[in-house]
Amino acid sequence: MASVLRTSGRRAFNRVPLTRAFATTRPTGSETPFFPNEPSGPSLKTSIPGPKNQAACAELNKVFDIRSLNIMADYEASVGNYLTDLDGNTLLDVYAQIASIPVGYNNPNLKKAAQSPEMISSLINRPALGNFPSSTWGDILKTGTLKVAPKGMNQVFMALSGSDANETAYKAAFMWYRQQQRGGPDVDFTPEELESTMTNVAPGSPQLSIMSFKSAFHGRLFGSLSTTRSKPIHKLDIPAFDWPQAPFPQLKYPLDQFASENAAEEQRCLAEAERLIKEWHNPVAAIVIEPIQSEGGDNHASPAFFQGLRDITKRNGVLMIVDEVQTGVGATGKFWAHEHWNLTTPPDMVTFSKKAQTAGYYFGNNALRPNLPYRQFNTWMGDPARAIIYRGIIDEIERLNLVEHTAATGDYLYAGLERLAQKYPGEFQNLRGKGQGTFIAWDSPQRDAVLAKAKTVGVNIGGCGASAVRLRPMLVFQKKHADILLESLEKIVKS
Amino acid sequence: MASVLRTSGRRAFNRVPLTRAFATTRPTGSETPFFPNEPSGPSLKTSIPGPKNQAACAELNKVFDIRSLNIMADYEASVGNYLTDLDGNTLLDVYAQIASIPVGYNNPNLKKAAQSPEMISSLINRPALGNFPSSTWGDILKTGTLKVAPKGMNQVFMALSGSDANETAYKAAFMWYRQQQRGGPDVDFTPEELESTMTNVAPGSPQLSIMSFKSAFHGRLFGSLSTTRSKPIHKLDIPAFDWPQAPFPQLKYPLDQFASENAAEEQRCLAEAERLIKEWHNPVAAIVIEPIQSEGGDNHASPAFFQGLRDITKRNGVLMIVDEVQTGVGATGKFWAHEHWNLTTPPDMVTFSKKAQTAGYYFGNNALRPNLPYRQFNTWMGDPARAIIYRGIIDEIERLNLVEHTAATGDYLYAGLERLAQKYPGEFQNLRGKGQGTFIAWDSPQRDAVLAKAKTVGVNIGGCGASAVRLRPMLVFQKKHADILLESLEKIVKS
Repeated sequence: MASVLRTSGRRAFNRVPLTRAFATTRPTGSETPFFPNEPSGPSLKTSIPGPKNQAACAELNKVFDIRSLNIMADYEASVGNYLTDLDGNTLLDVYAQIASIPVGYNNPNLKKAAQSPEMISSLINRPALGNFPSSTWGDILKTGTLKVAPKGMNQVFMALSGSDANETAYKAAFMWYRQQQRGGPDVDFTPEELESTMTNVAPGSPQLSIMSFKSAFHGRLFGSLSTTRSKPIHKLDIPAFDWPQAPFPQLKYPLDQFASENAAEEQRCLAEAERLIKEWHNPVAAIVIEPIQSEGGDNHASPAFFQGLRDITKRNGVLMIVDEVQTGVGATGKFWAHEHWNLTTPPDMVTFSKKAQTAGYYFGNNALRPNLPYRQFNTWMGDPARAIIYRGIIDEIERLNLVEHTAATGDYLYAGLERLAQKYPGEFQNLRGKGQGTFIAWDSPQRDAVLAKAKTVGVNIGGCGASAVRLRPMLVFQKKHADILLESLEKIVKS
Repeated sequence: MASVLRTSGRRAFNRVPLTRAFATTRPTGSETPFFPNEPSGPSLKTSIPGPKNQAACAELNKVFDIRSLNIMADYEASVGNYLTDLDGNTLLDVYAQIASIPVGYNNPNLKKAAQSPEMISSLINRPALGNFPSSTWGDILKTGTLKVAPKGMNQVFMALSGSDANETAYKAAFMWYRQQQRGGPDVDFTPEELESTMTNVAPGSPQLSIMSFKSAFHGRLFGSLSTTRSKPIHKLDIPAFDWPQAPFPQLKYPLDQFASENAAEEQRCLAEAERLIKEWHNPVAAIVIEPIQSEGGDNHASPAFFQGLRDITKRNGVLMIVDEVQTGVGATGKFWAHEHWNLTTPPDMVTFSKKAQTAGYYFGNNALRPNLPYRQFNTWMGDPARAIIYRGIIDEIERLNLVEHTAATGDYLYAGLERLAQKYPGEFQNLRGKGQGTFIAWDSPQRDAVLAKAKTVGVNIGGCGASAVRLRPMLVFQKKHADILLESLEKIVKS
């Protein structure tokens, strides 16, 4: 393992001696590397941001808001799990572009997909898919997006972002709900509906709602933002719909020590969720929930909680939308995080984006298809170029068995973090994500300092919520990368 | 001109003799073709939809809603202004994917852009631009998107669709409006604002509004749909914000015969717009308006009307957002349609999409930049792949001088349509779009039949509103194509 941290470069690493715990549990020598040309470890050549980075930022600032800029990247130089910046600093990237890069930078098979004649045509002849699809569109869906449809689902409505995916799912839910009320797909709209909707009032524009959960994040457009409850900065000054918010369980860790308390907390939240569905003044057409609340702080709940929610939605005649924008596409050790729940019936809709590099919502029930054409429609109806990339990602996931791989790597990483948490309990609080692949987080009393410090030891990490460090490595993250990460984390907390 | 309609194929055309009016005004022999390999005219091999098309539709229907399907396209076989379908039928395309293809199918220079290393990296290493932009992102903006920024604007916020562009512009407007009320960018949010916004109520989530105009179309997500007033089918069953709708002038044609009536109509609409801004119970932060209402029926208003609106927004302290999603990028004979107005001050924001193949809003006033980072933010913040295509489109527009070209071709086409309208006044009612490039429409008493019939003579045309035929040819549409279109239209109305 001596080679995992390269010592070349102006700002060289000092190798940190391995802790005994790490040293005894590292079987990484047997792993086949996914990227033969990947660096053997991080290497820093300058402080971050370095001089080239700073100069480029000053230039970019003239045309683009750089106040949220983290790293000015050199993507051509980045490989696999390693992100290289403009000064040639190479960081192990366990944030992966806000949890959205699945199979590594400059993945050679994605490159082939990007160079295919089909891709080029999709880029230069962008179709209005609802009106003028290419004859290849069905195949792109069948061999890609739909191949990984969640169990019980065989249809998809494509979108361009997570917000877009959620909002189109909400629209489908509202149409479905009113159709039920109206008495089925063949009942005509009333003249009053046709007239009133043009001035945004009921009955044509009904005052229905989508219920979300405290600390949830579902996007930032007007409908999705009305269900987002993560941070004020996301919502301030923007008009919102009068929609209800149920409590999300606040579990105590370690889970096995607080089993009965946590079960009671989940029951409390379920009861309040059902009360809101029954009583909210704007009737609830659907609930939307993340399997793990991500932006909100990596908040987990048990399969029993989600099964409870499913039961509540069923007995109250509302839909259950599972927002897998951040959890989907393998990171939790299942292709879809909700597979962990073993629900008795599938969710009604599952939304996706990020690692899929495209977006949309899956569904299985034909009643969720609007009863008339052009009700759910827009100019592009997705982007075939991005759908082709998603297909390439799915191919890579299958070829390398990346979902199972991530489950195993996640277990390995989690075990290492548990050891760190035992050693530095103050620095690794509420460690969570056991058995959830690499979708792991903990609370840190000095979270922002930890994230900043991580760069100085060659790791790019993200945060979420008020105090969480969230790990979002790619699916090609291997045990050798976990070792480097664990070692770096120990270095940070010791300093 | 004998060769413009090819007669090969199963379902051959009969050449229609030229009308005298056409024959005397055709200088098309002198035009340099933009696409040397473009067909000389439409050719039909089967009825439409042909057998291959039908079989492919049945197959696609298993995975995709085909109820709005118009043509199953073979993009590889399509060239320039000609769209080829799966049965080998080649149609002159004056609809261009819902007005969104600017420089022709399989444009060779766009193909080069699609094959560039920069494109491939953008496709396979999709960045979260707000956090981890590539060092090339500033250049992509400067040499592309920002190069064509409307006069008075030097900044852009990128988006993924027209709806997304409009909604992010609305968000910027709300933040700006509240900041004015609050007393500037340095005034902190109150604890009450921070708390109330998490439950979607005022003051944190204020009940402000965006005013739009009757028959407007601004998109289909929740905020944009609340400003869309085109057709009930777009809005039914979807909750909407309680936002006001001003009347849009209903002009009478020909304009020169109804000058004083039309001026009075515009004054009436302006007065009502100002009254609504002053009196609407949810204060108006901004108005949004299309230069030509497109989906709503190609409704025009005069430059004086738009100047009047600008004056109203200025004196009432609200913003003016011009939605150029359909009118932008050259089709009206100016790069931006609002250039036709010669406003005394630029609009506050201009949104774009469609022919740009990407989307966003332009602005010039720094006060429209949110006072804090992460207020206007999302994972991807646009798509560099599509921004590279936009740059390629801009290069083609410059190289071929396509804006001036479209102005000239539009005048030529309009003159031909005027002659048709004189000859068949019942079939070409309210001809409009004079001096607006190829952005031309008229009302037809049998609109849907005309659109269907057009395919049988080898032309793909779109409609809008209740009875309008709208022409949305590409910017590479030339006089020779106009001749074919005019000839085809006469054939249709004569039949």
